[in-house]
Amino acid sequence: MSRFLNEKFCRLEAYTPGEQPQDKKYIKLNTNESPFPPSKGVLEAVNQDAVSQLNLYPDPECKELRETIAKHYGVLAKNVFVGNGSDDILSFAFMAFCGKNSNAAFPDISYGFYRVYAELHGVPYVEIPLKSDFSVNAEDYIGINKNVFIANPNAPTGLTLSLEQISKICESNKDNIVLIDEAYVDFGAESSVNLTKKYDNLITVMTYSKSRSMAGARLGFAIASEAIIEDLNKIKYSTNPYSINRLTNLAGIAAIKDNDYYADNCKKIVEVREYTKSELEKLGFDFTDSKSNFIFAKNGKIDGETLYKKLKDKGILVRHFSKERIKDFVRITVGTKEQMDKLLDAVREIL
Amino acid sequence: MSRFLNEKFCRLEAYTPGEQPQDKKYIKLNTNESPFPPSKGVLEAVNQDAVSQLNLYPDPECKELRETIAKHYGVLAKNVFVGNGSDDILSFAFMAFCGKNSNAAFPDISYGFYRVYAELHGVPYVEIPLKSDFSVNAEDYIGINKNVFIANPNAPTGLTLSLEQISKICESNKDNIVLIDEAYVDFGAESSVNLTKKYDNLITVMTYSKSRSMAGARLGFAIASEAIIEDLNKIKYSTNPYSINRLTNLAGIAAIKDNDYYADNCKKIVEVREYTKSELEKLGFDFTDSKSNFIFAKNGKIDGETLYKKLKDKGILVRHFSKERIKDFVRITVGTKEQMDKLLDAVREIL
Repeated sequence: MSRFLNEKFCRLEAYTPGEQPQDKKYIKLNTNESPFPPSKGVLEAVNQDAVSQLNLYPDPECKELRETIAKHYGVLAKNVFVGNGSDDILSFAFMAFCGKNSNAAFPDISYGFYRVYAELHGVPYVEIPLKSDFSVNAEDYIGINKNVFIANPNAPTGLTLSLEQISKICESNKDNIVLIDEAYVDFGAESSVNLTKKYDNLITVMTYSKSRSMAGARLGFAIASEAIIEDLNKIKYSTNPYSINRLTNLAGIAAIKDNDYYADNCKKIVEVREYTKSELEKLGFDFTDSKSNFIFAKNGKIDGETLYKKLKDKGILVRHFSKERIKDFVRITVGTKEQMDKLLDAVREIL
Repeated sequence: MSRFLNEKFCRLEAYTPGEQPQDKKYIKLNTNESPFPPSKGVLEAVNQDAVSQLNLYPDPECKELRETIAKHYGVLAKNVFVGNGSDDILSFAFMAFCGKNSNAAFPDISYGFYRVYAELHGVPYVEIPLKSDFSVNAEDYIGINKNVFIANPNAPTGLTLSLEQISKICESNKDNIVLIDEAYVDFGAESSVNLTKKYDNLITVMTYSKSRSMAGARLGFAIASEAIIEDLNKIKYSTNPYSINRLTNLAGIAAIKDNDYYADNCKKIVEVREYTKSELEKLGFDFTDSKSNFIFAKNGKIDGETLYKKLKDKGILVRHFSKERIKDFVRITVGTKEQMDKLLDAVREIL
């Protein structure tokens, strides 16, 4: 730390992303990436001609990209905001809509970044405990009178809320925003995107990082009322107007057009998820009913940290969280069937 | 504006980037892009194999990129921070090092974003008037006891400070940071990068957007003491750890390795700049002694806004600022000789 750092950040604890080792080749089941490459359309769009134009700035409005996303989701381009990954959008939302007098509420076990954003932007917050079965208790958020941030499916549990529950949360918190983080929605939850037409306080956030095989391109988007999108744009144009580079912009357009390919991949991942769960069950694992591209599992015979370490020794990365309530678990990204068979073999050896 | 926006942002005026029209083809001399494409090495690095790996997250530490930049500039990787364009870094610096008790100072005529960042992050600031010849008066910053932000060369004037002047500013403001924004340094100013070894309060910020033909890829970097880089990383890991996408990362490494190509392009741009100035002089223009890739020019026969509009009608975009002291001027990016000849022809017709 330098002597120049603003004292309000001195005790800030940054987010710890999953390991991204550059040294050797692992079977990477730790950061919920897709095991499938981007679609043919993406490969065609990010071509040498596009690279040769990198001397020119991108379109700061990302007009075509927003129009393409809007068309796919049945909204208008003015209801779409794009960011440099959904993290960018989450940070903007904490910054824009929360403040000293407008607190935030989110589950105690969820995407670890919500707490970091609250701390970073000086937002008072409450972390609401999940129920003992790790589900979000929607009742806890009814009329809470705070800005609500919920991942649906939640991470790292994979458990979902229904649209009816989300509607009630929106309806009962009219003076606050309700942000539903749908990073994993395409693997089995219902999207709240259509509810944005009914509730002007709802922000649905999605990412290309998981179901659309573009974690490496950094692209996320939010769908919400025009006024909310305007506010997000105000923050964007006050930080980094050109936050989406030219190639990601092109890839993002192409990926939406190749939706069938990605939908098919999601189907495969769901099948492999259920297969892996049934095999893990035979090995004595318990898990939540994940509707995501990861499995959140524990085994009475081995604690989460030991399992994580032993798998890493065998060249397989999964994610372990040291937080008290979930330290017995590991979060395993669902890869290809071949990858999961290797994981299962390794687990069998370890047990 | 939504009813949810934090009131501290209600009156915030966002930055207005230069026009990036998507409708028709202009000769774009308005956003200081390079007229030259990226180097062969960049084209080779951003290949189909790289695109096919976009399903995987990038290295959040950008280790190889930082090592490559460090080697080129004769510093260590721990002294290098990379951001999603230099705007990202400027925003982080205002956020991290300024605050309620630590004010900012920058020239009244400079990169318009400094004021926006100060407003966004709630930083009290002073805008120090340039001298009547539009140069920065270094004396104004000696012992000012505020965080200093100076573009060198300055924009939109193109005028430079010497390393001796920058040293004095660093030495006399030991409790504050001095950020030298070297977006345009490769076109004729002296870089302060070596001074970062002597002054632990100096941050040298550079970008790939201008001299390295990568405005469309979004990449900037800062060189400073290890402690300052740690602080910038803390902000990065509290906002968006994966801010640099995989392809930009690869392009950034390749571009440094192809330094000769870019140095040669800079030389060409300087030659064309001087040629264009001599031709504009014949047409009655005055200009500052720009050491950048733009010319800041005015002509007593026509006001800046009219010239901008008439050039736009002819398919040539330059930039006009409506700020009082500089409203007579236009800022003309230096393109290829062919582009500048078309500009000169158009100007002749207009006059």
